[in-house]
Amino acid sequence: GSPGEADPVEAEEFIRQHHAEDPRLGPPEPRLEQVRWQIATTGTYRHTPAELSFGARVAWRNSANCIGRLYWRSLRVRDLRAVDDPWGVFVGCVNHLKLATNGGRIRPVITVFAPDLPDRPGPRIVNDQLIRYAGYREPDGSLLGDPRNEALTATALSLGWRAPAHRGRFDLLPLVVQTANRPPLMARLPADVVHEVPITHPELPELAELGLRWHSVPAISNMRLRIGGITYPAAPFNGWYMGTEIGARNFADTDRYNLLPVVAEMLKLDTSAEHTLWRDRAMVEINRAVLYSYHAAGVTITDHHTESARFITHLRGEERAGRSCPADWSWIVPPMSASQTPVFHRYYDTQALLPNFLPAEPEPV
Amino acid sequence: GSPGEADPVEAEEFIRQHHAEDPRLGPPEPRLEQVRWQIATTGTYRHTPAELSFGARVAWRNSANCIGRLYWRSLRVRDLRAVDDPWGVFVGCVNHLKLATNGGRIRPVITVFAPDLPDRPGPRIVNDQLIRYAGYREPDGSLLGDPRNEALTATALSLGWRAPAHRGRFDLLPLVVQTANRPPLMARLPADVVHEVPITHPELPELAELGLRWHSVPAISNMRLRIGGITYPAAPFNGWYMGTEIGARNFADTDRYNLLPVVAEMLKLDTSAEHTLWRDRAMVEINRAVLYSYHAAGVTITDHHTESARFITHLRGEERAGRSCPADWSWIVPPMSASQTPVFHRYYDTQALLPNFLPAEPEPV
Ligand code: HEM
Ligand code: HEM
Repeated sequence: GSPGEADPVEAEEFIRQHHAEDPRLGPPEPRLEQVRWQIATTGTYRHTPAELSFGARVAWRNSANCIGRLYWRSLRVRDLRAVDDPWGVFVGCVNHLKLATNGGRIRPVITVFAPDLPDRPGPRIVNDQLIRYAGYREPDGSLLGDPRNEALTATALSLGWRAPAHRGRFDLLPLVVQTANRPPLMARLPADVVHEVPITHPELPELAELGLRWHSVPAISNMRLRIGGITYPAAPFNGWYMGTEIGARNFADTDRYNLLPVVAEMLKLDTSAEHTLWRDRAMVEINRAVLYSYHAAGVTITDHHTESARFITHLRGEERAGRSCPADWSWIVPPMSASQTPVFHRYYDTQALLPNFLPAEPEPV
Repeated sequence: GSPGEADPVEAEEFIRQHHAEDPRLGPPEPRLEQVRWQIATTGTYRHTPAELSFGARVAWRNSANCIGRLYWRSLRVRDLRAVDDPWGVFVGCVNHLKLATNGGRIRPVITVFAPDLPDRPGPRIVNDQLIRYAGYREPDGSLLGDPRNEALTATALSLGWRAPAHRGRFDLLPLVVQTANRPPLMARLPADVVHEVPITHPELPELAELGLRWHSVPAISNMRLRIGGITYPAAPFNGWYMGTEIGARNFADTDRYNLLPVVAEMLKLDTSAEHTLWRDRAMVEINRAVLYSYHAAGVTITDHHTESARFITHLRGEERAGRSCPADWSWIVPPMSASQTPVFHRYYDTQALLPNFLPAEPEPV
């Protein structure tokens, strides 16, 4: 099919799966006939609200990289398929963050904007997450902020974004939304919808002096939601954080905030040789700080031990339901103390399933 | 072919590879003709000493689960192919340990005993490592020692092994060697060839009171060395330890010595909730103790940071040589502080190559 046309084979499989998993819907044939007719006459079809909700939840259930799938049934699905203009998408994202943040008791939410249609691509969010900190390349070659977002920061600046007068390590980037045949929209998230947590340590008061902070809601915004042969290119979703995402990766990766040498110095660790395991020790302490700070701020967060055990519960449930649960070992196993988590000690199904979240389309150049 | 017959396709590939990688050998055709003739008339062929050395080293180079492959060229290959009787194998293993231990400056060594021949299987070492600690199932259902070796301990006892009068957590198991048409041989390793390290901690004197120890040489003894279509079922090999094998797995796995709760108590950590990360903290300290103790005892050991960097060097070397370097991410990436090691942040070739070490044959029942 041409871009934006619905895949009829995927469509049929999806409708059959939906009816099989929800017997109240009765036999799939009547709905299949409608869908075939819509595809034959228009090149695509419209999901019912029930199909959209089911499809989005199953896309989460099928996300092989996600350890947090136990609660896949509880995903809140916001149907904003009528929205395909950039301002509408921006406002939809702002409201998404309010609903998801919920004063700290984070709710898993997905907002589904207009799909790709034959000859009319849906809107697209350029940011890979709704909330991102700027990464500035300084004249002396060094990098201020989050190195991961260097390209996004450059894009924003080239579109006219005015960085704060005093640039910092945690400057919020604007949202950039693209739609067909229009210039991209760039807009700042209102400060009050971006909930953040200052990072402190239960026993090391000096750590607070580093001025670290992180946002409460991880909302991935550039993956394409694929349901029954239809692609929704703008469908931001969020859960809550697992502490290691912040403590073991964002703060610790040498190509991110690279904080372990600073923390090690604060702890007066012997960094003269690797075998003192100063990195490992500093890693534990920064992760303790993250979990402690989110708890102290009343913001939902999970740790890798608890979440690994939950994932094993989820696997058992899927097995009982007679379903395959695809999982990528290298993503599911946490990035620290891996062998202390039960997910380390087994292998997983790897066959990819649909519905699912597909990687972002490569950036147009 | 029937069991023990050499695979002529693998044989030819191996001879060609040997001659390609060592141009001093000249064109492979003359040797190929010999090999074909030997296989046609006897069902198998004999490796030259140079082929055996090359094959064993390349088997190491191709071991997708091994992070320690940088030094593959330096493997010492002991040619004991003439030995196929159980006592000979036992004595060969004892001498292997002496050569490998080298007073603490561990040397990577492999000892190759008789191959499988048509209608005459080679000898087989039942122990999965030359040095293993007993795991006793006690009358009350608890387990004393290393739970991993419960079955091997039961086998040894059933063959008449007399455990020490005072059973402990680190009792050396005897070696069990099997050959065709004979009862298995069981024999104790002389105490002086089993070099061990008492575990102490640089800052926590109480840790020494736990009476922990571990052996200096990890020598895998039940994998089958496969070279050029010939199987050597007894070919024990060793490198030196990477600290996490002992600290993060043998001592810490909940189905092994399960020491983290004990270490956490010693450190007075708050174990009331997972999010205090007491497991992670205790994991770092037991690993520091392992590295510290081996260094203090003058026994070669490596840490996961250093070894990961070496493995990246090895990968570059293999790339430069125009070779694929198969690697299994889930084995190569260390079981703690994974994202702090460079091996975490990339993928690997996964296509299996020969020569190689194949898993042990399933235990005959
Ligand atoms: C409810 C709490 C949740 C937790 C604790 C959780 C946890 C995680 C973690 C730790 C990762 C790996 C992230 C990384 O290493 O970069 C991940 C990835 C992922 N999660 Fe979840 N998740 C949650 C909710 C959700 C929801 C609601 C969805 C979708 C509806 C989702 C879909 C995904 C997807 C698609 C990925 C892979 C992202 C990629 O490939 O870049 N997760 N999750
Ligand atoms: C010189 C130092 C060496 C180091 C530091 C090293 C390190 C390691 C490590 C950490 C593992 C994973 C072990 C586990 O998680 O159970 C491993 C596996 C392995 N190594 Fe090495 N190694 C070394 C030498 C050797 C040598 C000399 C050979 C063979 C000649 C070898 C062959 C293998 C094989 C076959 C495995 C996989 C074992 C299995 O699948 O159970 N290694 N190595």
